[in-house]
Amino acid sequence: MEHKIGLIGCGTVGQGLLGILHDKKDHLRDRFGFEARIVAITDKIRGTLLVPEGIDIPAVLDLLGKGKNLSDYPKAAPGQTEPLDPLDMIEKTDAGIIAELTYTDITTGEPAASYIKKALRLGKHVVTSNKGPAALHYKEIREMARQNGLQFRIEGTVMSGTPVFHLVECGLAGNDVREVKGILNGTTNFILTKMETEGMDYGAALALAQKMGYAEADPTADVEGFDALAKIVILSNVLFGGTLKTSEVPCKGISAITKADVEAAKAAGFRYKLIAHAKKEDGVVKAIVSPQKLPLSDPLAGVMGAHNALTLETDLMGKVTIQGAGAGKTETGFSILSDILAIHRC
Amino acid sequence: MEHKIGLIGCGTVGQGLLGILHDKKDHLRDRFGFEARIVAITDKIRGTLLVPEGIDIPAVLDLLGKGKNLSDYPKAAPGQTEPLDPLDMIEKTDAGIIAELTYTDITTGEPAASYIKKALRLGKHVVTSNKGPAALHYKEIREMARQNGLQFRIEGTVMSGTPVFHLVECGLAGNDVREVKGILNGTTNFILTKMETEGMDYGAALALAQKMGYAEADPTADVEGFDALAKIVILSNVLFGGTLKTSEVPCKGISAITKADVEAAKAAGFRYKLIAHAKKEDGVVKAIVSPQKLPLSDPLAGVMGAHNALTLETDLMGKVTIQGAGAGKTETGFSILSDILAIHRC
Repeated sequence: MEHKIGLIGCGTVGQGLLGILHDKKDHLRDRFGFEARIVAITDKIRGTLLVPEGIDIPAVLDLLGKGKNLSDYPKAAPGQTEPLDPLDMIEKTDAGIIAELTYTDITTGEPAASYIKKALRLGKHVVTSNKGPAALHYKEIREMARQNGLQFRIEGTVMSGTPVFHLVECGLAGNDVREVKGILNGTTNFILTKMETEGMDYGAALALAQKMGYAEADPTADVEGFDALAKIVILSNVLFGGTLKTSEVPCKGISAITKADVEAAKAAGFRYKLIAHAKKEDGVVKAIVSPQKLPLSDPLAGVMGAHNALTLETDLMGKVTIQGAGAGKTETGFSILSDILAIHRC
Repeated sequence: MEHKIGLIGCGTVGQGLLGILHDKKDHLRDRFGFEARIVAITDKIRGTLLVPEGIDIPAVLDLLGKGKNLSDYPKAAPGQTEPLDPLDMIEKTDAGIIAELTYTDITTGEPAASYIKKALRLGKHVVTSNKGPAALHYKEIREMARQNGLQFRIEGTVMSGTPVFHLVECGLAGNDVREVKGILNGTTNFILTKMETEGMDYGAALALAQKMGYAEADPTADVEGFDALAKIVILSNVLFGGTLKTSEVPCKGISAITKADVEAAKAAGFRYKLIAHAKKEDGVVKAIVSPQKLPLSDPLAGVMGAHNALTLETDLMGKVTIQGAGAGKTETGFSILSDILAIHRC
């Protein structure tokens, strides 16, 4: 079956997705009977392509790789590169699936939330790796999707393409998840790992993380725990049906942790990790983000470097922990594909 | 939708499954529209029940819990408890799904393999936690299922209900799995953990494992690596399309590992684990089971006690590791449910 797909945003994640769709074309068709036709792309910086017959992916990736814009697409027919606001693109395209891949605004969830709602109103499935709408408007959007018989899928919002929501939906279906505890930010885990294994102080480890591209020039969202906070709120609301707001969750990052703290913990047989934790108890959902000293026997204690991991506490299977990449162009691109494949399976 | 299910074998796993089906009845119906009717049970020791209208699960669990036989089932109509060979039960029942839950014979895979083939020939899906048929006859049985448009599912053969095959099929769909490396036997991991963390020698740790019910009176299958061997052969054949035989895979257990070995490894920053490893390279599938000294940065090094874990090396997502229970009544019972739910979803 062929799926017509429209992309809002074509930065790292969008290009990662396009690359996979091209490289894995034969595999996806032969294995799953899945074919993708990219019929629309709109990107704030790179412009618009509205091509009902389907874009030539290598040609578009080549353009973008060279820093050019979508208006330079050599095969465009007249009008196909005319600039369009995403809201207008959603209206004009016949895509059945919209991949919303713009940047996260964790305060309002906009403009992504508006794009998503419009797509659902017009009968299109939505997949996204954008944490804003999922952290702030999950219940409303999910309900809107349900009423329209559509899917709103968000695998990439937590741990990139490492399966979390798929795991709960599929391999663990039938379990009640009662508690989750995870390392959901790779930058801080990288910093803590370097502080422990190479004796760096916080500043040196942060500088290395920045040099290696794990941390932004302004590292606040990572090191103060706000990125992990958004993710634990998403997990709480999806897995426990909660309506937590980020402002209701206590959040402490790692910027106050010293080399001496890390060394003292190590000497006592513990390891510092930035832990995001959520629990449903007596119908109340509670979450917190904070640095924790874990005993080395904790499955999360062994998670080193930029990897992420999540332990799910379930009623039938006890503790199940999944560990994998938490970010990356291909990894987050894959998260979008995995959600599209889930729609394909239905 | 209601599924009619027949059980061959009603020991620990079968009773685990029945318990879950009863306890989770409402959850499964409300959440997935899934209902189960157990229409047949045949057990070598406990006898037979052939009840087309569906058995009363609590009544059967009560009987078995008291050491009674299925012939004591109070609600049986005439003829419903007449002893039946599993092959005859398969013929007489109108179950659409057969759960094959007899003990593993790793030399022949029989009689389970014959039960499974007969069920498939008669148009019934098969789910099993029995390692024998999966390790020895996977390709043939899988092909037979495919030709008949049926499913042959084996989640419980590796890591009990901790999702491995579901993970590959669902959350990681689209990836090529190139290599797997795992701790697939809980008994040996428990022994190695005790040797390292409590300074026990091998004999004392084994005795403790036996006392706690992790190891059998004859621990050979666990400690010499044969259990892990069967599992890595299953993984090789399912994930890499191999046709490996257990006799072709080098296998070394942990019985020769001394306290001094474990301590020397620890002092050098390593940890002994019994590792099952398989890889496809240039079209050739190779596997091995052997004790390995892992650096503590390896995701498998942190897996302590009786837990199991598997690292999948994939082309898109890099390394993904899942850790969880590797055995247990509820956990293996759940593996059967998870396979039945997968059939339900189709």
